[in-house]
Amino acid sequence: MTINPDAWLHLKRTVRFGDTDAAGVIHFLNIYRWSHEAWEESLQNYGLKASNVFPTNNLKNQKNRLLIGLPIIHCQADFWRPIQTGDNLLIDLTPKKIDNGKFETKFKFKRDQEHIAQSLVRHQAIHTLSHQRCELPKEIELWLEASSLNNGISLCE
Amino acid sequence: MTINPDAWLHLKRTVRFGDTDAAGVIHFLNIYRWSHEAWEESLQNYGLKASNVFPTNNLKNQKNRLLIGLPIIHCQADFWRPIQTGDNLLIDLTPKKIDNGKFETKFKFKRDQEHIAQSLVRHQAIHTLSHQRCELPKEIELWLEASSLNNGISLCE
Amino acid sequence: MTINPDAWLHLKRTVRFGDTDAAGVIHFLNIYRWSHEAWEESLQNYGLKASNVFPTNNLKNQKNRLLIGLPIIHCQADFWRPIQTGDNLLIDLTPKKIDNGKFETKFKFKRDQEHIAQSLVRHQAIHTLSHQRCELPKEIELWLEASSLNNGISLCE
Amino acid sequence: MTINPDAWLHLKRTVRFGDTDAAGVIHFLNIYRWSHEAWEESLQNYGLKASNVFPTNNLKNQKNRLLIGLPIIHCQADFWRPIQTGDNLLIDLTPKKIDNGKFETKFKFKRDQEHIAQSLVRHQAIHTLSHQRCELPKEIELWLEASSLNNGISLCE
Repeated sequence: MTINPDAWLHLKRTVRFGDTDAAGVIHFLNIYRWSHEAWEESLQNYGLKASNVFPTNNLKNQKNRLLIGLPIIHCQADFWRPIQTGDNLLIDLTPKKIDNGKFETKFKFKRDQEHIAQSLVRHQAIHTLSHQRCELPKEIELWLEASSLNNGISLCE
Repeated sequence: MTINPDAWLHLKRTVRFGDTDAAGVIHFLNIYRWSHEAWEESLQNYGLKASNVFPTNNLKNQKNRLLIGLPIIHCQADFWRPIQTGDNLLIDLTPKKIDNGKFETKFKFKRDQEHIAQSLVRHQAIHTLSHQRCELPKEIELWLEASSLNNGISLCE
Repeated sequence: MTINPDAWLHLKRTVRFGDTDAAGVIHFLNIYRWSHEAWEESLQNYGLKASNVFPTNNLKNQKNRLLIGLPIIHCQADFWRPIQTGDNLLIDLTPKKIDNGKFETKFKFKRDQEHIAQSLVRHQAIHTLSHQRCELPKEIELWLEASSLNNGISLCE
Repeated sequence: MTINPDAWLHLKRTVRFGDTDAAGVIHFLNIYRWSHEAWEESLQNYGLKASNVFPTNNLKNQKNRLLIGLPIIHCQADFWRPIQTGDNLLIDLTPKKIDNGKFETKFKFKRDQEHIAQSLVRHQAIHTLSHQRCELPKEIELWLEASSLNNGISLCE
């Protein structure tokens, strides 16, 4: 597993034509698609397997079925500058554990050093069978912990 | 159940701003979203329940789980005129059974009597557990049959 | 023009299969697509023409080009219940003028009387050429005013 | 500019959670989003600037406005295997000039050496002002020519 959080907390993305609308700039809700995909890329770069976090259709093998889901309970975004096809964005992630069953990730979008947009996505862990709230999966706990080392004097680890 | 196929084979849709891209007209792939949603509306108008055709997350009750899936194996579309926000479209559906496990639906898009685009979507029935090909679900068979009455001398109904 | 705000502030929508993800429920960002489309339907039901509010590609006739754009500067959403394919939703809109150049719309999503999700979308008027902030277009002012009659004893208007 | 077509004709993509639907596999129309984004990445890797090919909202500077658009007139896709979150795909592009104003790109999707899906997207060049058909932009001609070197003993070029 990577040790340096830079590998999973600082990502890149190029804006594509399908992200825009007839006003010539990005259609607003695509910031959430970018945010979710950046989160998935972050988990992957940290070392997690997608099928350990996201449900797939492994119907043949019910034993492998995910027992914990992570539905989004809140999300928000702010836009400060128009964003266009071809723009190269830097995305900074700041994950934060809220309580034993909740966490959120802040996504900061930058272009040429300028902070042009931001989003926030909050998840609640639930049992996929009972739909009852539960504790975060261990993998997510590890990613949250490792990510928090990004913001402090954590050299003694 | 409705008897007149017009109720489920001739639908309407207004083009929305989020359907467009920076060229000012619809982003091409949205024709497939419209086609799939028109198909769902057609099944609903015919009298089928969405949860009898499309998988949901009824994980608590495994007995209720859908046993037959209808993945798309082929799709195609043609565009003859630019389509813009606010355009009122008429969508004509022509469903056709191909064999015991396959069917396709042709979608014709019209604006002010003019035929401006078309699409075609082909499905193959599979067992959701084994992923093996199988026969079409009975509900789909009924919808296909009732729809075929649209194109012939079916006045004796 | 319609007089009764019910016609443009209380709308309906059926959840479609393409709105879901592999967790079996709606993919979160689609709540924003529904919100934006409900806003467009609201303007239409009130009596506005889409091409007077949303940019199109009328490049031939530059005189017709929209001079005021309404980019989204903030949006947020909360989810309280899983939402599935086939669900019939009621959407209640509460538009509110913030200042001369800003307004927001609250969208309340209900299923069987239960309030299951909500969103909020805030717009800032700008000149499309200079990108400078400006006053709201007259049509939007009228829609905001007429909509506010929904919430009070405003018969003396 | 890169000389080796491998840099722009053989691309990679990881399937993300938002690409799926409640059947647990990709929602079919996303193959077109991947195809269009792969095409944009191909042009970029070849050395073209997005704003020279795709319209943006440079309204201030009308001189810079794109004079040639490349609307899609036909597209099709075939699916042979279910595709899931986390799958690592290889995308092979085969661009082909059809006539002076038309070209198409074939996209072959592979996972672990297996050919699991394909798509085809065809474009027609038009003048953005008159909407009349016209010749392909010079940049696209160059990309088509350079790409064709991929398929033969073209070292003497």
